[in-house]
Amino acid sequence: MPEFELIGRIRARAAVRDDVILGIGDDAALLAPHAGQQLVATLDTLVSGVHFPVDTAAADIGWKSLAVNLSDLAAMGAEPAWALLALTLPEDDAAWLDAFLDGFLELAGEHRVALVGGDTTSGPLAISVQLSGFVPPGQALRRSDAKVGQRIWVTGTLGDAAAGLDARLSGASGSAETDWLIERLQRPQPRVQAGIALRGHGGAAIDISDGLLADLGHVCTASGVGADIHAHSLPTSEALAEWPPAQRMALQLGGGDDYELLFTLPAEVDASSLLPSGVRATAIGSINAGPALRVLDADAAEMTVRHRGYRHFGKTQ
Amino acid sequence: MPEFELIGRIRARAAVRDDVILGIGDDAALLAPHAGQQLVATLDTLVSGVHFPVDTAAADIGWKSLAVNLSDLAAMGAEPAWALLALTLPEDDAAWLDAFLDGFLELAGEHRVALVGGDTTSGPLAISVQLSGFVPPGQALRRSDAKVGQRIWVTGTLGDAAAGLDARLSGASGSAETDWLIERLQRPQPRVQAGIALRGHGGAAIDISDGLLADLGHVCTASGVGADIHAHSLPTSEALAEWPPAQRMALQLGGGDDYELLFTLPAEVDASSLLPSGVRATAIGSINAGPALRVLDADAAEMTVRHRGYRHFGKTQ
Repeated sequence: MPEFELIGRIRARAAVRDDVILGIGDDAALLAPHAGQQLVATLDTLVSGVHFPVDTAAADIGWKSLAVNLSDLAAMGAEPAWALLALTLPEDDAAWLDAFLDGFLELAGEHRVALVGGDTTSGPLAISVQLSGFVPPGQALRRSDAKVGQRIWVTGTLGDAAAGLDARLSGASGSAETDWLIERLQRPQPRVQAGIALRGHGGAAIDISDGLLADLGHVCTASGVGADIHAHSLPTSEALAEWPPAQRMALQLGGGDDYELLFTLPAEVDASSLLPSGVRATAIGSINAGPALRVLDADAAEMTVRHRGYRHFGKTQ
Repeated sequence: MPEFELIGRIRARAAVRDDVILGIGDDAALLAPHAGQQLVATLDTLVSGVHFPVDTAAADIGWKSLAVNLSDLAAMGAEPAWALLALTLPEDDAAWLDAFLDGFLELAGEHRVALVGGDTTSGPLAISVQLSGFVPPGQALRRSDAKVGQRIWVTGTLGDAAAGLDARLSGASGSAETDWLIERLQRPQPRVQAGIALRGHGGAAIDISDGLLADLGHVCTASGVGADIHAHSLPTSEALAEWPPAQRMALQLGGGDDYELLFTLPAEVDASSLLPSGVRATAIGSINAGPALRVLDADAAEMTVRHRGYRHFGKTQ
């Protein structure tokens, strides 16, 4: 299938928005920025065998390739608008493309994202998605806004995606709990509305893609602060609660791919009252003058943590 | 080298612009759109062994990965502003990265493009660049604006990049002419100022990436017209003029990667007077009611053309 047929197949399914003047089909997309708003732009690549196992279903790859970008916009408090998609495919496979678009466009529809352009090339399977959105001036959530005394919060539950990857690679499946964990890995729910709700409260935000400690470390570095985390406070899903405690804790502190939001708020603000209904918010610690990032046990004693970073599946660097 | 060190290396060299509120270093870039202007956005991927030979110098890859995107914006008549860069690298090689940035940032500097964000991942070498720019409302150059009676023009000379690839793959080098052709392949000059100069004259435009006939075909399809091309009018570089006529003609009609602009203008408008000095403009034919795209010889007889499309180096589809 020549490239223009692939593009035609994508174009036929792309939704429109009023702010898209010219979508797929010319040399570039022509778009109307929102008056008085700032543009928020991100670009992320997923590589087969690195960011997902090679036998991952096309629809799940489609979903996740957009989800990781939506999560970046969520962490800025931005409202998503336009996506560009660069697909590198080892072969022309219309069924694969259709299934990929099923997952990609299902999530795009949930967030009113229009696919406005991109590129198809031949090569080892990889997907680059560029996503743009909007935020009012001065209201973007930054990594550098954590302040001493603020509480640290996370949305949802932690460690599920890393546990799902573990289950996926070990061939475990069949139980409802395992399937749920794998779903968390393959179909992360970007916290877009939560990010928007956090605007204007004076805290920092980041999405948890590399793992809680690694991403909190980025916030601390950018803000010039330290942090204490209470290990017993980490939100745990029912599925993960069944795992051995030490393994569970390592996944929750170091496991990535959850795409939950980590954010800080002044101590007197209760995140539960800010976030959309259905999005769990859990206070897990507090910001201090630092410089250390410490993990405390139930007796407030510092724990020794071995795994401080998460490497995406197969990541070689 | 961990990802954040790679990103730090890139960040240290990225230039700034007044309209960049937050560049590399957060979850996404934060940008100030230009009041009253439309946004023009493109995303292109270059894959090693597909879009360039695997032994291409890193600086040339860096240059070209931005050049192909600048060319897309040129073909819309847009003024470039911001780039996002997603690099997929097989290994951590600081020297390779530095050389890549040499080429990328040299061209970025020539066009005042700020590198504002992106991503680094592990995997087979590939580069995705997303570029945004601006155009006044209603002035973007579209593929669909070719009209019956308009003349067809191209910038620069044709066939050089394909000849350069031919020379590159056959191991020819050493002569000044051959080196010049290879330079045309590896360091295309996007026609940004020419595209801007063509705004508001009522014609269509596209950049020649797939080859003259293939790209003119896209314009004809989008505009619902046909075209006649005068083969003897095709602009030829001194280096290519030495090649056997039949081979030269095939490269000029079917060879891609020139990244010259193909555009149409009302018959009474002379493109030479519109374009910046130093950019050659050549009238090569005219738009008619179609539907055929014909190539005519010096006696106005239709020629049979075998190669109607260009496949990038190694492209398997």
